[in-house]
Amino acid sequence: MHKGYFFTVEGCEGAGKTSVITSASEYLSSKGYDIVTSREPGGIEIAEQIRSVILDKTNTLMDGRTEALLYAAARRQHLVEKVVPSLLEGKVVICDRFIDSSLAYQGYARGIGIEEVLAINSFAIDNLFPDLTIFLDVDPEIGLKRIHAHEDREINRLDLESLAFHQKVREGYLEVERLFPNRIVKVDASHHKDEVFERVKQVLNQFLESDSKA
Amino acid sequence: MHKGYFFTVEGCEGAGKTSVITSASEYLSSKGYDIVTSREPGGIEIAEQIRSVILDKTNTLMDGRTEALLYAAARRQHLVEKVVPSLLEGKVVICDRFIDSSLAYQGYARGIGIEEVLAINSFAIDNLFPDLTIFLDVDPEIGLKRIHAHEDREINRLDLESLAFHQKVREGYLEVERLFPNRIVKVDASHHKDEVFERVKQVLNQFLESDSKA
Repeated sequence: MHKGYFFTVEGCEGAGKTSVITSASEYLSSKGYDIVTSREPGGIEIAEQIRSVILDKTNTLMDGRTEALLYAAARRQHLVEKVVPSLLEGKVVICDRFIDSSLAYQGYARGIGIEEVLAINSFAIDNLFPDLTIFLDVDPEIGLKRIHAHEDREINRLDLESLAFHQKVREGYLEVERLFPNRIVKVDASHHKDEVFERVKQVLNQFLESDSKA
Repeated sequence: MHKGYFFTVEGCEGAGKTSVITSASEYLSSKGYDIVTSREPGGIEIAEQIRSVILDKTNTLMDGRTEALLYAAARRQHLVEKVVPSLLEGKVVICDRFIDSSLAYQGYARGIGIEEVLAINSFAIDNLFPDLTIFLDVDPEIGLKRIHAHEDREINRLDLESLAFHQKVREGYLEVERLFPNRIVKVDASHHKDEVFERVKQVLNQFLESDSKA
């Protein structure tokens, strides 16, 4: 049927990415699309090994550029082993975080520079940018509160970062959105999840309509 | 006393890097320099973790770009935790393999492209190129025979590559040498190790003399 689409969902911790991906997946399935949802490292053995190095709480000496290169490496392997084969089969891949996370977290918030982190990630993705990226924008204070409400969720090294860091991540996302205005659509994620998804549904429909006209 | 120097030694498997580094270290120590020898990952915990992912024999699905990004990540961490602090203390760091290995192995032999692998490694080293690189050039057939003579040495994933691959690595080094003619000095490493070191000693003395004149 249709050629594959590559969608990504981005946002700060607690922005509601999981909920949006679940709803989008059900919605697009009901419209007849074959959906694959994923998040890096996506069960890819090599990418899982890399992720365990990144998230190891004892790796406190990790340099920001090392971290950025590791994310790019895990991204590459997940893309090659999972995303590309699915797209070639005509599926719709919805991925929880992708290149923009690195641009916002490492490029902007850690101060390495968006352009420099974009350079290594361009190497990693070899021009396979998402067709559409939904950026769920929420005040990090609200986002972090949502996370801590889920008491059974394991806290990792990134959760331990200060609120100020997460504020910078949000600024980073806003900057990245300005760099890729055609690909990235910002959605206000401060409301109830049903309202947020109504807006996401509009964005998806607009994309699919404009694509079918192309 | 003197500001630190950063020397690297490069070459195919079995070119005799270890022997040259031992002799160079003794020679420079006898001239009063404070020497640190290292090889990536250099005992740096994070870099060791990354290296174990790269060299894991079961990771047969590893993409060439993933591998290149992992080498760059391990390089970054080793540089930040070990090389830079030693240089700041005025020491002479002699490193077994560095950026040129990635350019020759991943950039050229694996066909990713030297320029592209240089881009991610420029990100990793953030302009800290070696002051001098000694490229030990030897026919890979001789090099691989030397390795297999050491029966107690563990064979890793890279050793299992075909001779044709190692021939391409050599071509890659020759190409990289042309890109950085001022930094890289090629030494014929097909002779007995004593002869090879005599030439290396000349190269080191020329560098130190020209630097003291600068």
